[in-house]
Amino acid sequence: MTLITVLAGGVGAARYLAGQLQVTSPSDVTAVVNVADDIELHGLHVSPDIDTVVYTLSGAIDPERGWGLADETWNALNELRTLGIDAWFNLGDRDIGTHLFRTTLLRQGHTLSEATARLAAARGLGCRILPVSDQPIETRVTLAEGTEIGFQEYFVRLAHDVAISGVRFAGSGDAHPAPGVLEAIDTAEVVVIAPSNPVVSIGPILAVRGVTEALAARRARNVAVSPIVAGAALKGPADRMLRELGEEASVVGVARRYRDVVGALVIDEADAELAPAVDDAGVRPVVAPTIMSSPEAAAELARRTMTAVSP
Amino acid sequence: MTLITVLAGGVGAARYLAGQLQVTSPSDVTAVVNVADDIELHGLHVSPDIDTVVYTLSGAIDPERGWGLADETWNALNELRTLGIDAWFNLGDRDIGTHLFRTTLLRQGHTLSEATARLAAARGLGCRILPVSDQPIETRVTLAEGTEIGFQEYFVRLAHDVAISGVRFAGSGDAHPAPGVLEAIDTAEVVVIAPSNPVVSIGPILAVRGVTEALAARRARNVAVSPIVAGAALKGPADRMLRELGEEASVVGVARRYRDVVGALVIDEADAELAPAVDDAGVRPVVAPTIMSSPEAAAELARRTMTAVSP
Repeated sequence: MTLITVLAGGVGAARYLAGQLQVTSPSDVTAVVNVADDIELHGLHVSPDIDTVVYTLSGAIDPERGWGLADETWNALNELRTLGIDAWFNLGDRDIGTHLFRTTLLRQGHTLSEATARLAAARGLGCRILPVSDQPIETRVTLAEGTEIGFQEYFVRLAHDVAISGVRFAGSGDAHPAPGVLEAIDTAEVVVIAPSNPVVSIGPILAVRGVTEALAARRARNVAVSPIVAGAALKGPADRMLRELGEEASVVGVARRYRDVVGALVIDEADAELAPAVDDAGVRPVVAPTIMSSPEAAAELARRTMTAVSP
Repeated sequence: MTLITVLAGGVGAARYLAGQLQVTSPSDVTAVVNVADDIELHGLHVSPDIDTVVYTLSGAIDPERGWGLADETWNALNELRTLGIDAWFNLGDRDIGTHLFRTTLLRQGHTLSEATARLAAARGLGCRILPVSDQPIETRVTLAEGTEIGFQEYFVRLAHDVAISGVRFAGSGDAHPAPGVLEAIDTAEVVVIAPSNPVVSIGPILAVRGVTEALAARRARNVAVSPIVAGAALKGPADRMLRELGEEASVVGVARRYRDVVGALVIDEADAELAPAVDDAGVRPVVAPTIMSSPEAAAELARRTMTAVSP
């Protein structure tokens, strides 16, 4: 038994987890998922990162879009737009089924953890999916021009095509880890920080009370996979956000972000020449192919990542 | 200009209103619609009677089912059921678009009146649709065996196939008429009580503060159309409910229900022999064909109904 706990955002983490589940027994894998980009839309509780992870691991994700469900229709949203609502967040009809499910359970008094566990079970997942907290945390983004907006407004409505000057996680100071989160960190053979946006996907997880401390206490057995390859994010605005926040959009910048909580950082072969600089930042570099271009590549990345800290 | 105000429930009222709009300028017609069968489902605010009226008058209703939208798909609800939720209230995908619309506006702080006005405008209606109140009223049904349940649980979940012993409208004592409701009653040339369920569709409207008084003050210019024909409800459980509540499931029972608020009752030719009994109950009977088997029949019924109290 090799217990593995993966701190996860959306698409990159979901692909990494799919690889992990090929090399580790699903019942030994726990994903601790970001919830700070959750949003209440038209009365529905939407958890984009949880859904991306669950949809991907259950094979239900739309492979073209990389988010939402395959074989989707868009009749509810089309109707809503026809009626004159500026519905900027795409919600497919089947996807709405998931949000109705979650909202139903939350309204009945269940926690987000409970709703997530039931969702994962209903979709046949063998691993455990934990929201990092059952309490609301909300990523707020300050634009360079001064306005503060919600994360999804930045990410979806503005297509992250605007300069930012700050990010905060409203509520994180009061948010407690969901049941099982600290235990999953404490008891894991290896904790992996998945290749997710360090600022807005992993940042909120680390901001929940006690999580950073729990990770720091076992730093040598924690490893991150860099979401930045050759100075660019494989997906999303992580590179741009790091730069705009005055950090380095490179594996070195990632190492600096994570140095208190991981002993090793897996960096892509394209960044091999930055290995010494990662080392200088206080994190042991492990050079490996990190592009998950196939299920096999994802499985191999999971294997390499585990052995980086668990020989 | 002949201002007409119609007190309305769902299907029967919607058909009557469609007839009314053929004989009266739409801008002169106000529908005051029951909201006591509104229900919060999976986080969405559903207003079945308002939607049936709006869908019918905009030509969007599914003609086979008589409720919901035509060309409907059911992907969200199928997904929700697949995930294990007992979703007993049917919600089509396009229909969900309407509920997302209403819920969005309510969450933004708009009233149900405002949301309804925008819905009616977006669907191109020329008449005015007013919820009887912007405050929640909830029809609660006591079953003969003693349990009290919500109206939609009785109506949809149990398919009204169970005996009842009582009905109440929770919240009606505190509910004020929505803006425009009392004015629409006061200023109308004719107020029509549509052929809707007297107990659970019209009952809650009459229970809102001031509505019965406003109607009573102008009783001679108010007319009801009986939803009971030859002792049976054309649709739904009105006949059964009347009997189970100890009333008469006939045009005479309807006359007794409405005698304080209407001067005349339109009864079907099938009930011509009950005209004297209606008269004895204190309401002037008007015999006419009331089965709205075609748009022409509905228009003719509206014409006959108006002339019953406005020669």
